[in-house]
Amino acid sequence: MAKEKKVEQITDMDVDFTQWYTDVCTKAELIDYSSIKGMFIYRPYGYAIWENIQHILDEEFKKLGHQNVYLPMLIPESLLQKEKDHVEGFAPECAWVTMGGSDKLDERYCIRPTSETLFCEHYKNIIHSWRDLPKLYNQWCSVLRWEKTSRPFLRHREFLWQEGHTMHASEEEARAETQQMLNVYADFMENVLAMPVIRGRKTDKEKFNGAEETYTVECMMHDHKALQGGTSHYFGDGFARAFDITYTGRDNQLHHPFQTSWGVSTRMIGGIIMTHGDNSGLVLPPKIAPTQVIVIPVAMHKEGVQEAAEKLLETLRAAGIRADIDLTDQSMGWKAAQYEMKGVPVRLELGPRDIEGGVCVAAKRTGGEKLTLPLEGVSDAVKGILEDVQREMYEKAIKNLQENTFDAHSVEEVRDGCARGGFARMMWCGDEACEVKMKEQAGVTSRCIPFEQHHIGDTCPVCGRPAKQMVIWGVAY
Amino acid sequence: MAKEKKVEQITDMDVDFTQWYTDVCTKAELIDYSSIKGMFIYRPYGYAIWENIQHILDEEFKKLGHQNVYLPMLIPESLLQKEKDHVEGFAPECAWVTMGGSDKLDERYCIRPTSETLFCEHYKNIIHSWRDLPKLYNQWCSVLRWEKTSRPFLRHREFLWQEGHTMHASEEEARAETQQMLNVYADFMENVLAMPVIRGRKTDKEKFNGAEETYTVECMMHDHKALQGGTSHYFGDGFARAFDITYTGRDNQLHHPFQTSWGVSTRMIGGIIMTHGDNSGLVLPPKIAPTQVIVIPVAMHKEGVQEAAEKLLETLRAAGIRADIDLTDQSMGWKAAQYEMKGVPVRLELGPRDIEGGVCVAAKRTGGEKLTLPLEGVSDAVKGILEDVQREMYEKAIKNLQENTFDAHSVEEVRDGCARGGFARMMWCGDEACEVKMKEQAGVTSRCIPFEQHHIGDTCPVCGRPAKQMVIWGVAY
Repeated sequence: MAKEKKVEQITDMDVDFTQWYTDVCTKAELIDYSSIKGMFIYRPYGYAIWENIQHILDEEFKKLGHQNVYLPMLIPESLLQKEKDHVEGFAPECAWVTMGGSDKLDERYCIRPTSETLFCEHYKNIIHSWRDLPKLYNQWCSVLRWEKTSRPFLRHREFLWQEGHTMHASEEEARAETQQMLNVYADFMENVLAMPVIRGRKTDKEKFNGAEETYTVECMMHDHKALQGGTSHYFGDGFARAFDITYTGRDNQLHHPFQTSWGVSTRMIGGIIMTHGDNSGLVLPPKIAPTQVIVIPVAMHKEGVQEAAEKLLETLRAAGIRADIDLTDQSMGWKAAQYEMKGVPVRLELGPRDIEGGVCVAAKRTGGEKLTLPLEGVSDAVKGILEDVQREMYEKAIKNLQENTFDAHSVEEVRDGCARGGFARMMWCGDEACEVKMKEQAGVTSRCIPFEQHHIGDTCPVCGRPAKQMVIWGVAY
Repeated sequence: MAKEKKVEQITDMDVDFTQWYTDVCTKAELIDYSSIKGMFIYRPYGYAIWENIQHILDEEFKKLGHQNVYLPMLIPESLLQKEKDHVEGFAPECAWVTMGGSDKLDERYCIRPTSETLFCEHYKNIIHSWRDLPKLYNQWCSVLRWEKTSRPFLRHREFLWQEGHTMHASEEEARAETQQMLNVYADFMENVLAMPVIRGRKTDKEKFNGAEETYTVECMMHDHKALQGGTSHYFGDGFARAFDITYTGRDNQLHHPFQTSWGVSTRMIGGIIMTHGDNSGLVLPPKIAPTQVIVIPVAMHKEGVQEAAEKLLETLRAAGIRADIDLTDQSMGWKAAQYEMKGVPVRLELGPRDIEGGVCVAAKRTGGEKLTLPLEGVSDAVKGILEDVQREMYEKAIKNLQENTFDAHSVEEVRDGCARGGFARMMWCGDEACEVKMKEQAGVTSRCIPFEQHHIGDTCPVCGRPAKQMVIWGVAY
């Protein structure tokens, strides 16, 4: 059946990936612009994806003993300044409240760019004894960072995220938490978002302001650029010392607790779009799709068609499938294009002849032949197809990652390879000066020191000194 | 068994209700103070109650076709000023952002005190045709109101809430939505929070800034003061005209849509505390309690006790009961007092002799004899007890409301009756001047014009002119 595309056209992704991305964000109705630059509106379809992400992650956090809290959105300037590295990193991009009603405030308050300082202030109040540890808190909220440039989902002045903040009696336990939460993120992205990740540690230059160590999951987008999917930080007792948080141990002595924080944001939705999307629009992993299956009756005016389609809808829903139906008077071509734009994983068509034959016809968003499914046992068949789509999406994404990650032995190789698109693996001496040179000379940043190391050479190609480890380099969003 | 109360004492509610309230908020670990006056920390136990409220209401909203969105937290001053009544009401209590990073902003932004203006700006972008209506949006977020005084849950500078904002093609449909959502709130408060409500309309003086009509559910607290539980507003097409929102109707003509908004907030948690609490602390309605049942093993050191208690826990959880267990080394007395403070509806104790007899012992938070329950079929028995507790709480609250609501025939009767505590029903001419006099002379405000009217007299006791309707008067939080 020839498709008559009546939905608004989007830019070809191979012609202009940036414009293609913006087109998908707006035409799939994920996002809208507000009158303030860099502050976006999460529309129902975009927000529903976030709700599904929240639902799955929140359950995972709680299983691991975390509790949700909500702290104020404002941070007094004096509080933000308590940890030196932290304030240096965030002060330049804070939005400042200076007036309350018609009164000028004695001290200005910034809208939280992140909440380490607020959590520390609260922890100081509630942690006194080893019995109070660990504290495993998480917060779902929005944060503000007054950035100069913006792009939907990738860089907002205000964005939605979760921030976990935990306190532990021992360094060992805090380090284990940092790793555990990185793995929660990695597993979620791979198993739910169908986005393969590279797990690793950030270099000192790239780590979070105030952290001892930052761990990251890095993803490769369709255009072979990198997206940092989530981070998990180990703070040691640095903040605890700065905020004078102590507890009485089992040994009856005062100690500082050890701290972590970890977060993912609506940036992940940008990652889903850029990992899986194509020239027909969005492609959503079934596990996160607000609508997994759209039922479209064919020749709806004919007797019994609408009823049969609605019965099919009910059958799917009763089986726990997130299904919807389109009973509008738009053409079949428009509908097909519309649900492709919105990335609905499976389209089920049902016309008079299908009903007669006791079947319906399934089209996968990821392509391939249309499938004829008996209405008897249709839910199990559809569940199988949803699993296929989920798996195919992951396989396609990991193929992209593997085919575009290469070993490099010189700055030039990294420069040329990453300019074509991809991740470069190269040995590094560990010196920040060489890292800076890589940015200047190859136009890349270090994405991470991956946990999975292998031997490419013995020296750092930048300075010729002995190499300590392998680093992944790339161009990042 | 004599209780050795080792948990921190709270003030007697009959001696100082205000202090009792604050004690419960902090000692039941619902809330903590931050370093900014009026900005509170929702602690895990307080936030968990809010999560349960969210979960139930959100499902209800979605069943009725509403979709969640997220709009920016900042409103440009020029946008806030578009609707005159609205800005007059809110501007005096806005917190203003004037700096972004180190730059002074060209225009100042207020942190949303409510989002009508933002929704209108967005609706103008996305509503063009009758096919785009209705729009049934809801937002879960925090809002800021720079108030001078503050109390936990009742008056925060920042608080959590939901705000529904809908647009309709006809006045009739918008009015029906306003009523429908008021009823959703009323049913939720009565059936879930066990708080009886009076449904009614606000007088013009008390309605929302910019609304044509405001509907309210009013609740009576233990001290006989009023708490406004939730409101639902009908806007007509006033905002739509101010924001120039139009759509092309089926008649091919341009029209302005009709608008509603409706909201409830974490204030309801204050209402739960003040409706149901007692001198032992919080009392939570089972339907909203984060922990419905606490299992406490007795003589835990004896063989088999902990195992039996854990088995009981698993049985309850498997039956869908939110159950927890206390395996700490605190005394039985401490534990009993602790879970009373936290308002856990049912305490289940299980010791060696109980295990031998195949039973456990249940204590209801609402009091009465302890109950001996066979372990065989314990989940159904516990569910029955939870239902009893829920019903008893509602019955006690409605008795309080009924016994402390009285008919009044003069300003003095209202003044004296409400000073003792209670709601006064009195006839009213409808003139705002008389309403103002009631505040001056009787120290009360109009709570609402209740939907359930009855005849008390023919004249307005303030001015002697013919009465139009009956009004409920009271002292409000």
